[in-house]
Amino acid sequence: MSKRQHEPSKEPPLTDPSTRQPTHGERARTLVAAEATGTLATLKDGHPYASLVAFAMAGPKAVFLISEMAAHTKNLRADTRVSLLVAEKVVVDPLAHGRVTLVGECRVLERGSDEDRAAREGFVARHPGAQVYVDFKDFHCWTLDLREVRYIGGFGRMSWVGAEAFEAAEPDPLAPSAAGIIDHMNADHADANLAYAHAFTRATDATAARMTAVDRYGFDLMVDTPAGSKPARIAFDEPVATPEQVRKSVVALLKEARAKLA
Amino acid sequence: MSKRQHEPSKEPPLTDPSTRQPTHGERARTLVAAEATGTLATLKDGHPYASLVAFAMAGPKAVFLISEMAAHTKNLRADTRVSLLVAEKVVVDPLAHGRVTLVGECRVLERGSDEDRAAREGFVARHPGAQVYVDFKDFHCWTLDLREVRYIGGFGRMSWVGAEAFEAAEPDPLAPSAAGIIDHMNADHADANLAYAHAFTRATDATAARMTAVDRYGFDLMVDTPAGSKPARIAFDEPVATPEQVRKSVVALLKEARAKLA
Repeated sequence: MSKRQHEPSKEPPLTDPSTRQPTHGERARTLVAAEATGTLATLKDGHPYASLVAFAMAGPKAVFLISEMAAHTKNLRADTRVSLLVAEKVVVDPLAHGRVTLVGECRVLERGSDEDRAAREGFVARHPGAQVYVDFKDFHCWTLDLREVRYIGGFGRMSWVGAEAFEAAEPDPLAPSAAGIIDHMNADHADANLAYAHAFTRATDATAARMTAVDRYGFDLMVDTPAGSKPARIAFDEPVATPEQVRKSVVALLKEARAKLA
Repeated sequence: MSKRQHEPSKEPPLTDPSTRQPTHGERARTLVAAEATGTLATLKDGHPYASLVAFAMAGPKAVFLISEMAAHTKNLRADTRVSLLVAEKVVVDPLAHGRVTLVGECRVLERGSDEDRAAREGFVARHPGAQVYVDFKDFHCWTLDLREVRYIGGFGRMSWVGAEAFEAAEPDPLAPSAAGIIDHMNADHADANLAYAHAFTRATDATAARMTAVDRYGFDLMVDTPAGSKPARIAFDEPVATPEQVRKSVVALLKEARAKLA
């Protein structure tokens, strides 16, 4: 959709494209885990029908608790083929706005089965308001048996992800704290961001840099240079799982950067 | 989905259900006019596929400017049946969160035709960033020829709306200023809201009332009573089109309410 696709830059990127970053399967799992509503596409007499739906993830499986009265449930009763679009709502950089489409078939869970009980419990944990109707006779739990996943992230990232890769991936453990880490780094450590840019990217003439994303493998910078703003990727020495580990890693990287620049 | 549907209250509503309010066609037109992205459901080899799409309304017609490279465009080239879900993003009261599904067929506009030129111009006006790619050869304008509309509003409002009713309806002229009017009434005129509740609803024992919606035909109140909070509807004497007309109408209604309560 962007100019980027049509007029690729001839300049090399600021950092090596192989710098470790989440796979598209991991990005998709992370995005879906952070949201709780999506758009369900079903078939109404063969015609595609899009409707808003609440969901909860049971591990890699999407679960729905829906009324027999709902239009999409009537559609599912006749044809189980679906896809669920989940779009990221809260983003630090709007250019990084991502979305995931889960494509597969919906299956109604047998009322009272272990799978059904676990699904209802997980759904109510994610949607406390569902407590009101979880036991109504006309509400059933359904699960989405995946066939494939379409992932579209920011900056031209997009691909089809196999069901197995999606199911094997783990949501990023830092996702819930990423926004806070980014705010802190940009508000209080602009000098560190700039040192990373000078030491670890081609932008030795950078005038400023701000963090735009952080995940278990590293972080993204948007680097201001005399030739414009460019993205760069910095990897941690090893994957991290907690904000405290991020803190240690960015301190270690800063030490390394300053030694290199001295 | 709510308790309301399953356990209807036996008490009469605070105000006459026939109090004038926007039709579902008008509500749907208003909602769609306020948004610019939605979820498109298309068919991928007969399987429903949901994807995020930018749109612009050309009067009652949804218009898309999409690349031949996009998955949904490939789907449309094979089968033109679609639906577009548009969900309200900015709401004053989350219970009033609405959404609209436009069901119909997509038609590609002939490049250079009057309809195509008008559609591109309208699309770029709504999405200024599209200026970058509007003339790319692989981007075409499509329009959605409507078959029917599903409207789901807050408080159990939902219905199928015919294509003609949707196309004949006008978006509410107050929609862009409604949030400001509501904030003002609740912040500075809580006494007026309560006077409306006392004078024009059954809640003569109301302890507080806040405005939750305003449109060309009147406004909604949420009224606190000793028996809980209940919604009420107050109609203007005649439809209004501007914030200034709202101001005159609420002042006139307050005079009427005080006379009645005196």
